[in-house]
Amino acid sequence: MSSSPIVVIDSGLGGLTVVRALRAALPAEHIIYFGDTARVPYGSKTAGTVTMFVRQIIHYLRAFEPKHVVIACNTATALSLQAVRKEFGDLSISGVIEPGARAAVGAAGGKASPLIGIIATEATIRSRAYENAIARRRTMARVLTRATPLLVPLIEEGRDQEDPVVRLALRQYLLPMHKEQIDVLVLGCTHYPIYRSLIGRMLGPQVAVIDSADQCAQDVCRRLGNASRLRRSAIGGGLRCFVTDDAARFARLAERFLGQDVEPPAWVSPEDLRETVVQSPHLALRSAV
Amino acid sequence: MSSSPIVVIDSGLGGLTVVRALRAALPAEHIIYFGDTARVPYGSKTAGTVTMFVRQIIHYLRAFEPKHVVIACNTATALSLQAVRKEFGDLSISGVIEPGARAAVGAAGGKASPLIGIIATEATIRSRAYENAIARRRTMARVLTRATPLLVPLIEEGRDQEDPVVRLALRQYLLPMHKEQIDVLVLGCTHYPIYRSLIGRMLGPQVAVIDSADQCAQDVCRRLGNASRLRRSAIGGGLRCFVTDDAARFARLAERFLGQDVEPPAWVSPEDLRETVVQSPHLALRSAV
Repeated sequence: MSSSPIVVIDSGLGGLTVVRALRAALPAEHIIYFGDTARVPYGSKTAGTVTMFVRQIIHYLRAFEPKHVVIACNTATALSLQAVRKEFGDLSISGVIEPGARAAVGAAGGKASPLIGIIATEATIRSRAYENAIARRRTMARVLTRATPLLVPLIEEGRDQEDPVVRLALRQYLLPMHKEQIDVLVLGCTHYPIYRSLIGRMLGPQVAVIDSADQCAQDVCRRLGNASRLRRSAIGGGLRCFVTDDAARFARLAERFLGQDVEPPAWVSPEDLRETVVQSPHLALRSAV
Repeated sequence: MSSSPIVVIDSGLGGLTVVRALRAALPAEHIIYFGDTARVPYGSKTAGTVTMFVRQIIHYLRAFEPKHVVIACNTATALSLQAVRKEFGDLSISGVIEPGARAAVGAAGGKASPLIGIIATEATIRSRAYENAIARRRTMARVLTRATPLLVPLIEEGRDQEDPVVRLALRQYLLPMHKEQIDVLVLGCTHYPIYRSLIGRMLGPQVAVIDSADQCAQDVCRRLGNASRLRRSAIGGGLRCFVTDDAARFARLAERFLGQDVEPPAWVSPEDLRETVVQSPHLALRSAV
C-alpha cells in the first residue's frame, strides 16, 4: 500500500504547484497528475458540472489504486469534495481549502479580531467554502473575499509579474483589501503562487500571504504520516501526467508551475470519462506506474 | 422546410452576437442556440478536442431538423468546419471565418497591397484560417495576426470599455498593428464586438473594423435566400437556448450580447453529448420548437 501512488487532480495546470510542493516534501512518492485541460477552467462553472467532472476523473483513476487522492484545485475542492468523499467512501481524499484555512487562522495568531482576505475564482468565492472553514476554526475572524477571475487567464497567457496588465489588475483586486488593512491573504487558487512575490510586495510585510498549494502538500504529508503510508525508499518516486487535451501545450507550460521539466503527458479522451463505469478497461494502466 | 429552425452553435455566450444580427435581418426565423458553457472556452484547446465537441453538439441538435447550422464561434469554425461539413453531408453548415475574410478583402478595396489585421483566440490564430481565407480571395493582401486571449475573460468578467485594464490590454494588443498602419482589422471572435467602439477609437477612422458576427449573419441570409428557404411570416420567429452549464448565469449575461432579454435556457448534460448517437432520444424535442 505504501508504494501505491498519490493521485493529484486539477482542472488544468495550476495543481502542478501542489505536485511541486509534494515532491519537495515527499521525494519517494509516486504521483499521478490529472489535468482536465479539455474542460478547463472550472472557476466559472457550477457545482453540478464541476462535481460531475471530478467524479468522472476519480472513477477513471481509481484503477491505479491510489493511497490518497488530492483535489489540487480550489474550485473543485469547494464545489465537490464533500460529494466525492461521500461517494468514494473507500478512498482517502483531501482538498486545498481546509489546509489553507487552517494556515490562515494560524497566521492571524493572537490578534483579537483578525481580518483575513481571500482571493479566488468566482465559483470558490460564491461557495463560501473558505469563510465556512475559517469560521469552524475561529469564530471571531472577519473574512473579506474577492473573486479575481482575470488572474488565471493572465498566468495562462504566460504574462509575468512585470507585465503592466498584471500589475494593474492585481492593484484593482488588492487595493480594497489593502485599505481595509487585512492581516492575512489566502491565495485561494493553485495558479496564484506564480504572482506571489508581487502580491507580497503590494500588500507589504505586515500581511501574511498563505499559499494554498504549499499548505495542501503539508496536509498530505501529515495524513500519510499519521496513517503510516509514507513510502520509504532511497529511489525517487515517479511522476506520470494525464491530460484531456493538448499534451504538447501542457509539456511546454508545466515547467513554470512545477519548476522542472516534465515527461509528455498521456491523453485521455473526455468521452472516456463517465460518472458510472460499466466496466473497467483501465486496470491495465495500474501496471504502468 | 422553410419553417425549420436555424441552429446556432457556440462555445458559450459570444455567438449570441450572431443571433442578434440574425434576428435583426431575419425576424421571422426560428433560431435554436446552443452554448457549450460546461466546456467553454474553445480558444485555448486543440482541433481534435474542439472538433469532438462540435460533432457531439451537431449530433444532438440534428433531431431538430435544422435548415441551416451556423458555427458562430471563430475557433470552432477554424478548427472543425471542414470536418463536420464532411461528416454531416446532408446538412447545410456555415461558419464565421469566410464571411469575415470576404468583408475584410472588400473593405481593403482597391489598395495595391493592403494590410489586414486579425485579432482572435490562440487557436484561431494558430490555425491560419483567416490568412488562408484571405489568400484565396486576394493574393496581394498582407496579413498581420495577433492572439488576444485576455479579451474573452475581460468581457466575461463584465468589464466595460471604460475599465482601465481593458484599455491597457487593448492598447498592448493593438499598438503594433497601429504602428504597422493596418488598413482593416477583423474582430475574429464573436465576443469582441462588445469592445468595438473602443477598438475603433484606438485605431482611428482610417482603419475599417470588420465584425465577423455581422458578416456571418449576412452570409446566412444570402445562403437561405439563394436556396429559397427563408421563412415568410408576419409573426416573429422563436428563440430557444440550450446550455451545458449554468442556465442562470447565461440568462443573466445573455442580454449584453443579444441586446434583449432571453428566456432561461434548457440544460443539456455534457454526458448526453456523444460523437456517435446510438439511438435518438431527442426527436421529441423537435415538436417543441
